Amino acid sequence: MKTLKIIKIGGNIIDDAAALTSFLELFATLETPKILVHGGGKLATKLATDLGLEVKMIEGRRVTDSETLDVITMVYAGKINKTIIAQLQARQCNAIGFSGADGNTICSKKRSAHPVDYGFAGDVEKVNTPILELLLEHKVTPVFCALTHDQNGQLLNTNADTIASELAIAFAHTYVTELYYCFEKNGVLREITDENSVIKHIHTNNYQDLIEQKVISEGMLPKLHNCFSAIKKNVNKVCIGKPEMLTTPNANFTTISK
Amino acid sequence: MKTLKIIKIGGNIIDDAAALTSFLELFATLETPKILVHGGGKLATKLATDLGLEVKMIEGRRVTDSETLDVITMVYAGKINKTIIAQLQARQCNAIGFSGADGNTICSKKRSAHPVDYGFAGDVEKVNTPILELLLEHKVTPVFCALTHDQNGQLLNTNADTIASELAIAFAHTYVTELYYCFEKNGVLREITDENSVIKHIHTNNYQDLIEQKVISEGMLPKLHNCFSAIKKNVNKVCIGKPEMLTTPNANFTTISK
Repeated sequence: MKTLKIIKIGGNIIDDAAALTSFLELFATLETPKILVHGGGKLATKLATDLGLEVKMIEGRRVTDSETLDVITMVYAGKINKTIIAQLQARQCNAIGFSGADGNTICSKKRSAHPVDYGFAGDVEKVNTPILELLLEHKVTPVFCALTHDQNGQLLNTNADTIASELAIAFAHTYVTELYYCFEKNGVLREITDENSVIKHIHTNNYQDLIEQKVISEGMLPKLHNCFSAIKKNVNKVCIGKPEMLTTPNANFTTISK
Repeated sequence: MKTLKIIKIGGNIIDDAAALTSFLELFATLETPKILVHGGGKLATKLATDLGLEVKMIEGRRVTDSETLDVITMVYAGKINKTIIAQLQARQCNAIGFSGADGNTICSKKRSAHPVDYGFAGDVEKVNTPILELLLEHKVTPVFCALTHDQNGQLLNTNADTIASELAIAFAHTYVTELYYCFEKNGVLREITDENSVIKHIHTNNYQDLIEQKVISEGMLPKLHNCFSAIKKNVNKVCIGKPEMLTTPNANFTTISK
């Protein structure tokens, strides 16, 4: 089986034009098959504010009303996705942008309004791989933004970390699948302010301890939940760290295993 | 050879939610292979105005500075394209959204700043069909917005009528190709206010007469230029009229021929 790399980049790379370009240069050099998943960054918040919309967050998650969904669709699927596609094409990486509605690739269900109403937020129900496999076989690189659909015409805002892990899980049947979460830190840190305190391996045995010790907390909790969900469902490799981990095997980063 | 329908819809359909839904219902029922091309409509102008950007038009064409290109990318590739994709998926039409950068499908050149500087406006240089053919063969329907790229990382605003005719020309080698320009009128009208004055056939012989008589003028001139460009380059059928012409062969509409 061929190896498929699924790589997720977050806001800190997307918001910084130089960091994004430098990441895309690196990404373009990786062999196909590969898939990129990108989050949103601050641009959606800025556009919402510029348009006079109130930005509502509950526990760090955006509340997506109808106007906010429009803003997110414009920024994620429009500005960010197409900027990435054009830059990858300039680097001979033949990329095609996707929301989960495109090709009916990622179907989700609107999250229940109880106990917390997050509005048009979707939880992934099904990933359809055949069209993506066809493109991957022809050396095309899908680039996903953080939008899915409910198959009834409704777009839904969906966590990019989850999209990356669900894609990895769906492809684990046909590829040796590797999932990489790239962000601005070297990995999961024992001391949040110390870049040298990377925890090199997190596995089922020390995971609960790290949560109890509050080494893993807040934003890192859902990210690690996605990592373990992927590992349990036959994804072969899950890593968290700076983009350099993609090309420097002995770099400092965190590997998640069973 | 199979018949490929390439259908372009303009602002008057896109700006009216009910008209768009009714068009997409009709479009979804058409047999594959088919391609949809959509223009922008008033939404881009509204967003630009809401953001305090000056909307500059020269001879009915938008001047695309860097901020305007961002707005266009957000509205065309984001909001409009993804709304269409989600609605088509709800109608069992397996659509994937494209800008010309996606899959390197439409390459263009930034228009010279002389004599008139239209900013980031692109003129189509090359259409690459293989990835699109692959998708069409698998009953996937590409949906193009009016953006192309220069292969050096720059997105360019490109006339949707031209994108439709260039796609039709490029596919004329592999398909019997039909090009339909859908808009709010029954076709090219002899009297602009009389919907019953449709000119049923325009061909090389009466084309110049109609221009000299100023029956064809203003916005209709570039549209007909695109029609004749397609007809001369082996597109098999070119029609202008209301969407009904797609399903009602004896409807009133304009057919362009050699």
